[in-house]
Amino acid sequence: MKCKVCREHAVVDIRRHNAGFCQDHFLEHARNQVARAIKEFKMFRADDRLLLAVSGGKDSLALWDILIDLGYDVTGFYLDLGIGGYSNRSKDLSISFAESHSAKLLVRSIETEHGFNVPELSALTGRVPCSGCGLSKRYEFNRAALEEGFEVLVTGHNLDDEVATLFGNVLHWNTEMLGRQMPVLDERILGEGDDARVALVRKAKPLVKLSERETAAYALLRGIDYVIEECPMVEGNTQHRYKHAITLLEESSPGTKSQFYAGFLRKAADRFRDAADNQADDSEVVACASCGAPTVRRGAHESRCSFCRTKDLAMKRKAEARRGPARRKSGA
Amino acid sequence: MKCKVCREHAVVDIRRHNAGFCQDHFLEHARNQVARAIKEFKMFRADDRLLLAVSGGKDSLALWDILIDLGYDVTGFYLDLGIGGYSNRSKDLSISFAESHSAKLLVRSIETEHGFNVPELSALTGRVPCSGCGLSKRYEFNRAALEEGFEVLVTGHNLDDEVATLFGNVLHWNTEMLGRQMPVLDERILGEGDDARVALVRKAKPLVKLSERETAAYALLRGIDYVIEECPMVEGNTQHRYKHAITLLEESSPGTKSQFYAGFLRKAADRFRDAADNQADDSEVVACASCGAPTVRRGAHESRCSFCRTKDLAMKRKAEARRGPARRKSGA
Repeated sequence: MKCKVCREHAVVDIRRHNAGFCQDHFLEHARNQVARAIKEFKMFRADDRLLLAVSGGKDSLALWDILIDLGYDVTGFYLDLGIGGYSNRSKDLSISFAESHSAKLLVRSIETEHGFNVPELSALTGRVPCSGCGLSKRYEFNRAALEEGFEVLVTGHNLDDEVATLFGNVLHWNTEMLGRQMPVLDERILGEGDDARVALVRKAKPLVKLSERETAAYALLRGIDYVIEECPMVEGNTQHRYKHAITLLEESSPGTKSQFYAGFLRKAADRFRDAADNQADDSEVVACASCGAPTVRRGAHESRCSFCRTKDLAMKRKAEARRGPARRKSGA
Repeated sequence: MKCKVCREHAVVDIRRHNAGFCQDHFLEHARNQVARAIKEFKMFRADDRLLLAVSGGKDSLALWDILIDLGYDVTGFYLDLGIGGYSNRSKDLSISFAESHSAKLLVRSIETEHGFNVPELSALTGRVPCSGCGLSKRYEFNRAALEEGFEVLVTGHNLDDEVATLFGNVLHWNTEMLGRQMPVLDERILGEGDDARVALVRKAKPLVKLSERETAAYALLRGIDYVIEECPMVEGNTQHRYKHAITLLEESSPGTKSQFYAGFLRKAADRFRDAADNQADDSEVVACASCGAPTVRRGAHESRCSFCRTKDLAMKRKAEARRGPARRKSGA
């Protein structure tokens, strides 16, 4: 196969585009796809300050590399989730990338910030690890972006990630999520007039036009050292099963994934917008009674955000566990 | 496992209901699911004359058995598609069923009616076999129902069939088809006032609450002799690939299929209704210029139905093929 641009020997073959690329033109293609996504979905402006959630994996490091290359003012944000050696290696690789690219990196640890790590949170609350982890990341990413004055929170979700999420939302006809599943989500304001402040920072996913295989190829060809191992806690994750089912179809019919996603945005997303809007209208954005962070209140009495409720539960259980053995001892 | 009704030994286990059934209670369960679908979706009334499309397979024969059992006035319709030994065996089994159940059966042959069979139609027009076959069946089923004065055309589509179709329509966001994918479709009227006549007969799918596995178990337990072999022309059929992908998810999470289908009807179908309605509004129902059958005209000049256009093409090619060798001979 030859490069579709220069007819030299191709090193990457993208079946859904029915095209091959040599190294240089593949890297150019990847950058172009990111630039096109930013432009098409009006993700951010050239002078916006971007905070990029960095996991140390291929997607976020490739995106970081591309955004630097495209000239954006981007700062990495590594959140240490405390998942043993996996987290240590991810953090080291994120720091190495920042150093070698002279890039700004913000590092926080969920343990330092809140007193628990992801495996503990799961054990204490009985939540599936991915669920507690996702909740913690959304909370901490938004908090860091607001506290550090960033205009946009950028994440490395690629086409396969978005397709798997879309597929899960469609399988369950989760209309509220379908109404919000866009490559960019506007910021949400809390309060009115002089009291108005940003509640949820603008979010953007510039990798939606690149597949997992393409971001891996990009990282490889650019010599980016990334964590290849998967998080040890995702075993049996439903997202993985959705990816697998759709990948089977992509293999026999290349382009299935991108058509599914692009077709949704073009022909179906608007049909679910009211479900997301209704949810927003029925609820009220208030300051969380525990942490003061803006949260969407549902129902009349609960005004703590779901992160704080989960954290409170974890802390309560942790205290009980500490008291537990002592009590048994005194009773013996 | 024990029967959920009588606690006797279960012979069928339905994982999505987390229930087992003995033979008698499974048969009762299957009949109840059909009766519930007819009632819930207001498919037809007790005194409607039903024409059931019968293929000789497990689904249509099981449904025939159940509809007779429930006391409906149902006539089978076997359309011989001319697919070699497969069609012969299907026809024989359909006739045997009718004889053993003293049921009414109408038999027609596409070759006798139109001068070609399904393999020829595919070879002559270059259409995928399943596409030409589906077109022919929809046309002939509707024509037979109208000519013979039936109120409702009933088909044996089961839950897996509907789920695979829904999945395909969602993957391509075929909004017009999504707006029409209901377990029952109202009849469509041609003309106004005294000229009004039924253009498309009412269609109903009473097996939508039963999976493929359940209709097979029903046929087996009732001793119904059905064609087990698949149509030899479906090789590589996309519908099969969709079934396979969703079946993988059903296996790890029983209930996925029925939730996907029921959730669509409850939470999403209405959101696509306008796409089907717009299509209906933009077009005009007219009598086909070739066969006189009612057809939906699209565009200003074409008033032949798509079956007649396909048939005309097949006939033209057939005539050319007959003339071809003679011409070459005279030229030699």
